[in-house]
Amino acid sequence: MTPSNHGKPRIVVVGCGFGGLEATRALHGAAVDITLVDKANHHLFQPLLYQVATAGLSAPAIAAPVRHLFRKQANVTTLLGEVRAIDTVARQVLLEDGSPLHYDRLIVAAGAAHSYFGRDDWAPFAPGLKTLDDAFEIRRRILLAFEQAEREADLARRAAWLTFVVIGGGPTGVEMAGTLAEIARDTLPGEFRRIDPAGAKILLIEGGPRVLQAMPQALSQRAREQLEHLGVEVRLNARVMAIDAAAVSVQSDTGAYLVNSHCVIWAAGVAASPLGRQLAQATGCETDRAGRVVVEADLSVPGHPEISVIGDLAAAKSWLPGHEPRPVPGVSPAAKQMGRAAAANILRRIASQPVRPFRYRDYGNLATIGRNSAVVDLTSPAGHFHFSGYIAWLFWLFAHIYFLIGFRNRLVVLIDWASAYWSKQRYARVVANIAPKKQEAQ
Amino acid sequence: MTPSNHGKPRIVVVGCGFGGLEATRALHGAAVDITLVDKANHHLFQPLLYQVATAGLSAPAIAAPVRHLFRKQANVTTLLGEVRAIDTVARQVLLEDGSPLHYDRLIVAAGAAHSYFGRDDWAPFAPGLKTLDDAFEIRRRILLAFEQAEREADLARRAAWLTFVVIGGGPTGVEMAGTLAEIARDTLPGEFRRIDPAGAKILLIEGGPRVLQAMPQALSQRAREQLEHLGVEVRLNARVMAIDAAAVSVQSDTGAYLVNSHCVIWAAGVAASPLGRQLAQATGCETDRAGRVVVEADLSVPGHPEISVIGDLAAAKSWLPGHEPRPVPGVSPAAKQMGRAAAANILRRIASQPVRPFRYRDYGNLATIGRNSAVVDLTSPAGHFHFSGYIAWLFWLFAHIYFLIGFRNRLVVLIDWASAYWSKQRYARVVANIAPKKQEAQ
Repeated sequence: MTPSNHGKPRIVVVGCGFGGLEATRALHGAAVDITLVDKANHHLFQPLLYQVATAGLSAPAIAAPVRHLFRKQANVTTLLGEVRAIDTVARQVLLEDGSPLHYDRLIVAAGAAHSYFGRDDWAPFAPGLKTLDDAFEIRRRILLAFEQAEREADLARRAAWLTFVVIGGGPTGVEMAGTLAEIARDTLPGEFRRIDPAGAKILLIEGGPRVLQAMPQALSQRAREQLEHLGVEVRLNARVMAIDAAAVSVQSDTGAYLVNSHCVIWAAGVAASPLGRQLAQATGCETDRAGRVVVEADLSVPGHPEISVIGDLAAAKSWLPGHEPRPVPGVSPAAKQMGRAAAANILRRIASQPVRPFRYRDYGNLATIGRNSAVVDLTSPAGHFHFSGYIAWLFWLFAHIYFLIGFRNRLVVLIDWASAYWSKQRYARVVANIAPKKQEAQ
Repeated sequence: MTPSNHGKPRIVVVGCGFGGLEATRALHGAAVDITLVDKANHHLFQPLLYQVATAGLSAPAIAAPVRHLFRKQANVTTLLGEVRAIDTVARQVLLEDGSPLHYDRLIVAAGAAHSYFGRDDWAPFAPGLKTLDDAFEIRRRILLAFEQAEREADLARRAAWLTFVVIGGGPTGVEMAGTLAEIARDTLPGEFRRIDPAGAKILLIEGGPRVLQAMPQALSQRAREQLEHLGVEVRLNARVMAIDAAAVSVQSDTGAYLVNSHCVIWAAGVAASPLGRQLAQATGCETDRAGRVVVEADLSVPGHPEISVIGDLAAAKSWLPGHEPRPVPGVSPAAKQMGRAAAANILRRIASQPVRPFRYRDYGNLATIGRNSAVVDLTSPAGHFHFSGYIAWLFWLFAHIYFLIGFRNRLVVLIDWASAYWSKQRYARVVANIAPKKQEAQ
């Protein structure tokens, strides 16, 4: 695992999300040897993962093989592997089989997974949405719930199969709830003989006083109205107390109640990769409550200028001369900007030049609710600029297609969407089997 | 599970492969109540399943939701369920949860699975290709083998990762071996830094004296030449004696040898659904060696005119006046023709008309070997008509796209292939994780 590197600095990049991908790209042409390690073989365009989970897109439409992306960048070696530990003394990362990878400089971009706030026992009953496997599992549960309802003669049990609960009113929760409502109201009617899919109940449960809390208040209000227009019941200031295979127990201002459902989706919280706390133990650096590594202004680990942490794993600040430093949000544009900044600072250090503090350029925020509806909050030097509805949806659509990696994927996604838009159909309504996932060949 | 049927005959169709699909379609507009049961929610276009296994197509491109296909056929109710048993006395089928479905007429089109000829212990080491799950598992093994080779420093172990063994020289084995060679020679080179994917070894092991034994001798010879031109080593008259996680043991005319490989694909044999033998026990009808039900000339079960068996589960004969009845091959055109014939005979029985014997119209046989090469054997009243090479490949391509169900799928498949053809890339090179499949959320 240590081929000759002709004396060039060895850079290991852990993770090929938006941060790791941009950092690696930014080192194109540099006299360094990069090894990019990820436990999946693909870069995932996570903003559209909910479309895979709701059968609107196939997985390959939003996933690009990492080594294909870097085939022409000669200084990159791609390895499929899971980094289990970082040995900051020996300067090596250890893969899942114990094999070491030496580094001179390290970029840790291992991201975040969903978090159940200490209630990991809820995980089997309320899958989250971070990986393709998560999306397949959620797709399976959604489609099977309608199938089970069609088979169920008992009205109460049928109603439970036709109740969908989305927990968390952030962008993912809003997208999932809105798309579920469209599946029930637009896609499936006419295909069942015993049930009316349009009668399905979709609940969005949010602990705070509004959905999309990162957005201005007016847009949260618009998003809620659009959700309700689609038929989603939005429950604000509502906390989940328990989840099991048959029901969700909810506590609100007005009292506690039980929702019978077999399809619960978790969109409520994220926690940083365990590599963050591990790095903290090894180097004495701090992590925040979500397990993110508190980094220096140049995105390096305090006392370890050879290690940078970026993306969702970093608790970073944005530095603008004359202003107080501000926390950087956990969104993909921030991860990409951190990737470029960390790469540039590494090249500066190699060239013995002074590093520069990271500055986050906030272009705004957008979220979609369904076909034809979205909310957009653009940030410009002249101030904020809001809009919502159909124009916002078109803006959201083209922004996402533009940022999708690779011409091939963009074209397929456009065709899939154009066809879904006109037909109200969803292309990828495929689950392998009625039985829970198993190795059928074994 | 027994809704009012207004006195119409209740027809249950078990299985939504080519046979069950065509039988159901042929009953369009008839005064019957059809319940179509399948354990998957989709009809699978199996002739292209090898493309999903080799990352050329996404699953939704070759799978159409059954209930969507029949949304406008008002006499069809689609149920997702696995038929475990047939009670021919009470005239009901029993689903996996024990719930019964009553029938007045039954069409059993439950198909076949791959068979290890009594060596089911080989299954974990040599997956076959029948379902989407099978295809995903094979795709995972192919892509991970190249990834593991890139990580492996030991040359002998690396060579084992770069050795692929396909067992069985029928159409599926030939397609898999040819496509594997193209992945190694055309798709992957340039993307790895430590290995040369083009150096991968692809073995096709066939027990008989030629590949594609259903084809005329000359086409078998052409197919073999085309495979060898692509870099596949074709081993004829070679029998597999053992398979484990590390190697395949082969016996040939000239002696025994061991092939070290971690990616072995089983394309050697099929066995009929267990429902066949079950039906034989219940009704006293016969099954053949492959477990197929020996049916009457009208495709019904002897002594049970209310039950028809069609497709890969039927040992049927083709009846042509003035000729000896001939066995019907297990191919998709035969299944479709049986589906239409069984449906027509059911309607005749309901109308108290005489049934007609099944006649198979053989339009020929075709198989593809890779980009630009295929063999075609057309059957016409004027005799057989062979061709091979590029023209045969174009013929194969358009025949398959033509028969794919639904405009949407056809268009996407065309685009995927056009793009794969020009770029030599494969669209769906996505595996979820380096670890064996597990529920990540749990």
